[in-house]
Amino acid sequence: MKNRIVTISREFGSGGRTIGKKLAEELGIPCYDNELLQKIAQESGFDENYVREAGEYASGGYLSAAFSRRASGPSNADYLWKIQYDLISELAQKGPCVIVGRCADYILRDKADCLRVFIHADLKFRAHRIVEVYGEREQSPEQRIKDKDKRRAAYHRFYTDMKWGHAQNYDLTLNSGTLGIERCVQIIKSLY
Amino acid sequence: MKNRIVTISREFGSGGRTIGKKLAEELGIPCYDNELLQKIAQESGFDENYVREAGEYASGGYLSAAFSRRASGPSNADYLWKIQYDLISELAQKGPCVIVGRCADYILRDKADCLRVFIHADLKFRAHRIVEVYGEREQSPEQRIKDKDKRRAAYHRFYTDMKWGHAQNYDLTLNSGTLGIERCVQIIKSLY
Repeated sequence: MKNRIVTISREFGSGGRTIGKKLAEELGIPCYDNELLQKIAQESGFDENYVREAGEYASGGYLSAAFSRRASGPSNADYLWKIQYDLISELAQKGPCVIVGRCADYILRDKADCLRVFIHADLKFRAHRIVEVYGEREQSPEQRIKDKDKRRAAYHRFYTDMKWGHAQNYDLTLNSGTLGIERCVQIIKSLY
Repeated sequence: MKNRIVTISREFGSGGRTIGKKLAEELGIPCYDNELLQKIAQESGFDENYVREAGEYASGGYLSAAFSRRASGPSNADYLWKIQYDLISELAQKGPCVIVGRCADYILRDKADCLRVFIHADLKFRAHRIVEVYGEREQSPEQRIKDKDKRRAAYHRFYTDMKWGHAQNYDLTLNSGTLGIERCVQIIKSLY
């Protein structure tokens, strides 16, 4: 199997982004994460922070659209989805890379040699990790995680109709809490 | 991480049993699959075939029990569950091994150093494989798979309250259809 692209979906705080970056570094290929955000912002004319929120932590754009059955036509989130879809498809055409998040697993499902990975860990591991990586916030780490995960899952479900975190959607899923971040990198690397 | 026990849950036809057997062979440790069935049959006094059906392909014992809220007390399936629970706990105490199916992932969740694996593959791969391994039957291979999976998931759900096939329940899940049986064996082996 020739896996030119690795897509990494991840639970918030599981270290999926770190795994993607290390993997790309070791393989000597680009990792698209924040770069993707910047590109979508450039294409759309929206602010980068707005794009970030819309894709992961929207104030309810696609959710309210879902509830209203999109009576009012395409939303900003739909517009961003289209740009994101085209950008990810283009990147996958250009060459080998790692793409973190942004439903790339779904977008590339038929288009590229693609290894689809999902990273998760238990709440305790992730709570500890997000305080380390992102610092303390007013909201408790557990609440931040539940909130983020819920929105990521809802976004993924709305645009892909796939169940987020269902083993059947991926080539492999890894528990970074029990296996460790470094070992996750090595397993994926061995499959590339 | 010291993983003395490997539990393998699997979709019907995905090659999970084959992976378990090869893995145990390469690691030089026992693999409990049919042996477990025989032990449960001995302990319970039930016929081996009945035990097999009750755990995987029951005619509705636990399902009807679920619907009737077990108004009539413990069923045969409950009795077998208890024996299975105790046997698997004992085996895990005895020494390193691979255990295929039988909710061992759940039974050992707090009791042993346990690497919990789930093997799956798409319908086409599995349909092809079950005809190769088990031969043609009156029912179409796709129907056989859907039927078996549905019952396995219901059994698992009833006795463990865990969602079968949810990445979060496992240390790793592998798609044997895209990765290949041999590669699955090697990945698990590298984690042992």
